[in-house]
Amino acid sequence: MSLLVVGSVAFDAIETPFGSTDKIIGGAATFISLSASYFVKPIQLVAVVGYDFPQADIELLRKHGVDTEGLQIKADEKSFFWKGRYHNDMNSRDTLITELNVLGSFDPILPESYQTCDYLMLGNLAPQVQKTVIERLKKRPKLIVMDTMNFWMDTALDALKETLALVDVLSINDEEARQLSGEYSLVKAARKIQAMGPRYLIIKKGEHGALLFGEGQIFFAPALPLEEVFDPTGAGDTFAGGFIGYLAQQDKVDFVTMSQAVLKGSAMASFCVEKFGTERLINLSAQDIAAREGEFKKLVQAY
Amino acid sequence: MSLLVVGSVAFDAIETPFGSTDKIIGGAATFISLSASYFVKPIQLVAVVGYDFPQADIELLRKHGVDTEGLQIKADEKSFFWKGRYHNDMNSRDTLITELNVLGSFDPILPESYQTCDYLMLGNLAPQVQKTVIERLKKRPKLIVMDTMNFWMDTALDALKETLALVDVLSINDEEARQLSGEYSLVKAARKIQAMGPRYLIIKKGEHGALLFGEGQIFFAPALPLEEVFDPTGAGDTFAGGFIGYLAQQDKVDFVTMSQAVLKGSAMASFCVEKFGTERLINLSAQDIAAREGEFKKLVQAY
Repeated sequence: MSLLVVGSVAFDAIETPFGSTDKIIGGAATFISLSASYFVKPIQLVAVVGYDFPQADIELLRKHGVDTEGLQIKADEKSFFWKGRYHNDMNSRDTLITELNVLGSFDPILPESYQTCDYLMLGNLAPQVQKTVIERLKKRPKLIVMDTMNFWMDTALDALKETLALVDVLSINDEEARQLSGEYSLVKAARKIQAMGPRYLIIKKGEHGALLFGEGQIFFAPALPLEEVFDPTGAGDTFAGGFIGYLAQQDKVDFVTMSQAVLKGSAMASFCVEKFGTERLINLSAQDIAAREGEFKKLVQAY
Repeated sequence: MSLLVVGSVAFDAIETPFGSTDKIIGGAATFISLSASYFVKPIQLVAVVGYDFPQADIELLRKHGVDTEGLQIKADEKSFFWKGRYHNDMNSRDTLITELNVLGSFDPILPESYQTCDYLMLGNLAPQVQKTVIERLKKRPKLIVMDTMNFWMDTALDALKETLALVDVLSINDEEARQLSGEYSLVKAARKIQAMGPRYLIIKKGEHGALLFGEGQIFFAPALPLEEVFDPTGAGDTFAGGFIGYLAQQDKVDFVTMSQAVLKGSAMASFCVEKFGTERLINLSAQDIAAREGEFKKLVQAY
């Protein structure tokens, strides 16, 4: 079924204990789209870049089945740019540079051909922009999944809550769930957040896996214990892409299918962190993914 | 099969955001024995208490199938006493009082009737004392499981490593695994720790579950997402008790059985934290435990 992805397409520059990159392709919608492309095609993309964004990177997205009709290219502005440095534990990072550029005035224009979308993934963006996308769709998608972050809880909480009331699934990390709900217990946090709108809540816990709450049930997905996390940038978005890509492929929205989608997302995220940026995501084979899923299943084989 | 448990039997006083207790029965060997008693009996206990320890609490242990022949009662000293205060997140705590008392000079004397033990659980104690127990057993048990903590890594690392070389399974938390190995990646940490002696390593991650490493495999056990953690005291020991109790019951030592034992331990620990101290552990039914295990299985039902 058709999948619409909205979010940033951008440049990242990354410093880790293992090395550093110049500007490379990044952005929530980039990771989401590449990850989802292993499950469903085409992927309709709504995003904005500047005159400095390389045609080769746009071609890369197209090669992965991304429909770029909704990708705006601003002739007089530069692309969104983020530079960050990871600490030794790879679990925390400092933002060194944030240049909003084109993202500062992003107006998410939906091509007419996108109006029939069944699955909508709202990557991390200002909640007002996410809400505008929902309002501009003439037919409500079967499922709307939203990602967000603590920055919007600090700076745009009311708008965030308005958008939250319109979506089916929210994907955030454990600290964000605690901040949004004011509850330390994730079970209590989930109940409060579900009362704000989303029927389903995914709480991402990085190396500790992920929890899915919905239909009065809880699913616990492990993370694959890794030798090394090379670069965590984009892991959460890659997770979201695998999650919604699988749901769009299956075209089913129930707790078991969603749990399986969480596993697909976890498997995709475990690839993402093995190399800088999108490097590991751009040429995976079906065999690679199946083998990784097998590793996840082995992790819980005693059940 | 017969199980020998060595560790502290003590008094705890606990302050949490939910309330506080006067001196109540605590200690690693207490939690381990009570938890293991739901899987195997009798449990041979080696520990020391002072003149102030209530006969009623010794009777409680006996009622749960604990053989107290190896419980020394010192007529002129007081029992070990620990007082702690948990912070609001229940994940960190301050030690307010530690009175070693009888534990300062604990000599673990093994009654002759304990010499045939098949499974040995070394609860958290000075590593020299743990080693003495192993040396005093004329026949090596089928399986030796050892618990320890960062305190001994800080103050008795050489002795800790000597004991570690003699055991089959080490049970520690993630921070301790990182401290002991000097590695942040738990996969790398496990490899280094296994090279120090134990064939199997359990890394406890509290609300994030537990990992079992061994035979070149990894098992990931979730923790049950709880509404409320009332008192975490003894949760790790309760986990260890369920783990070794199940292994002694099954009398099998292989990766799948050990993985199942990790699930049993996790289920027992999830009871422990629901009330102060041992309160929730002393009258569980087989139905309670089976129902809790069912909740754990539901957590991963999509696999």
